[in-house]
Amino acid sequence: MSGTQWQRVAIAPEQLHNDRIGLTAEQQHYLYRVLRLKPGDRFIALIQSQWWLSELRDLETAQRLEMIPVQTELAIAITLMVALPKNGFEEIIRCCTELGVREIIPIISDRTLLKPSPQKLDRWRRIATEAAEQCERQHIPTLHNPLSFTQALETPYSHPYLAVTRTPAPHLLTLPLPPPTEALLIATGPEGGWTPLEVEQSLKAGFQPISLGQRILRAVTAPIVALSLLAAHYEIHSTHDR
Amino acid sequence: MSGTQWQRVAIAPEQLHNDRIGLTAEQQHYLYRVLRLKPGDRFIALIQSQWWLSELRDLETAQRLEMIPVQTELAIAITLMVALPKNGFEEIIRCCTELGVREIIPIISDRTLLKPSPQKLDRWRRIATEAAEQCERQHIPTLHNPLSFTQALETPYSHPYLAVTRTPAPHLLTLPLPPPTEALLIATGPEGGWTPLEVEQSLKAGFQPISLGQRILRAVTAPIVALSLLAAHYEIHSTHDR
Repeated sequence: MSGTQWQRVAIAPEQLHNDRIGLTAEQQHYLYRVLRLKPGDRFIALIQSQWWLSELRDLETAQRLEMIPVQTELAIAITLMVALPKNGFEEIIRCCTELGVREIIPIISDRTLLKPSPQKLDRWRRIATEAAEQCERQHIPTLHNPLSFTQALETPYSHPYLAVTRTPAPHLLTLPLPPPTEALLIATGPEGGWTPLEVEQSLKAGFQPISLGQRILRAVTAPIVALSLLAAHYEIHSTHDR
Repeated sequence: MSGTQWQRVAIAPEQLHNDRIGLTAEQQHYLYRVLRLKPGDRFIALIQSQWWLSELRDLETAQRLEMIPVQTELAIAITLMVALPKNGFEEIIRCCTELGVREIIPIISDRTLLKPSPQKLDRWRRIATEAAEQCERQHIPTLHNPLSFTQALETPYSHPYLAVTRTPAPHLLTLPLPPPTEALLIATGPEGGWTPLEVEQSLKAGFQPISLGQRILRAVTAPIVALSLLAAHYEIHSTHDR
């Protein structure tokens, strides 16, 4: 059950006493008058970013029944490691947040021109928060402090992939991707691509080179495509599992 | 053979006499001195946006051998019908051109605020041309004059899909998509989505409603995600066919 057939009502934590929900006058009006529900009818209570299947008891109270696993988060935690482009990083944050990214690590690569200020970083985090709210996500993606690619490669990652262009590599969706219980990282390059040294270093660090398709993608487009493909893969996969 | 191992040289149509290529002094220098090729060696001649496997004969001439199917174009012709968003349409043109779209039909839907001027249309066509050149495509996507959704639905389309949100619909990639020999159209909505009437009209016109995933995508993100998924599907499919 996806829960889309039920109406959703935001409930403040102080309205909850054990599993009993005290409805405000406004909510009573909305549920009984506007939606024309009756005692015994169900709705979804949004309580601290969790979805609860709930049942109306009487005019003033409802009962919270069970938590509904929220379907808006991807089953797998995806980290995007992205070489800062000259322009368009804010668009990357917005789109990839909508597509379910869990963490973003901005990378200062050899070909990166932009060196971000602390003010920029605050702004980027605000954009991630706003985007997460707008698209009704539960998690706000973590935006890490920028790292040089060499620094970034010092950390070991679970299932790291490197998007390459003009180099033969298997298409991302032809690979056996990790199960959703694990985590995955995908790195996309700057304008002009990763340098041969960067590719070499990342392969040594265990990255799997992959292709995002046969056309040349800009530095701004590549991460959005990567997240589109991964989100589709894991949503279709987990839907089939249900 | 993907042809990436051969150098590419642009040949003007007037250099061609039947299948014999007359090399310019500059090309002779490039092929024999810079690349250090010898008679009998091969390269790719780019002739009027087609790739031709060619062989050096002597200092001044080469022979065009056979056309190489270019791998940068998608096997299927995809038309994007896109409700004009308040902002970001230029980004849609750029990204979807990179992703292989063949035609773009801008739609004035009931919830569209922007009414584009003829100057805007010229600018959009320039952006499509530039984006196609930058990402080395053969085809420049056709950018149609804007239509109202009702007008647009008067034309019959081959395999039309409608991206919907907040309505149960199968994920695009779970459907049996048409073979690459046919054509496909995908329509994405404006901010706030298609109106119920628009959805109803398009279903009557034979559109198949589809989902692009479980999260809410902005009007700017949806067409990019749609093209990412379709491009991946048809690239992986046609690679396996080879």
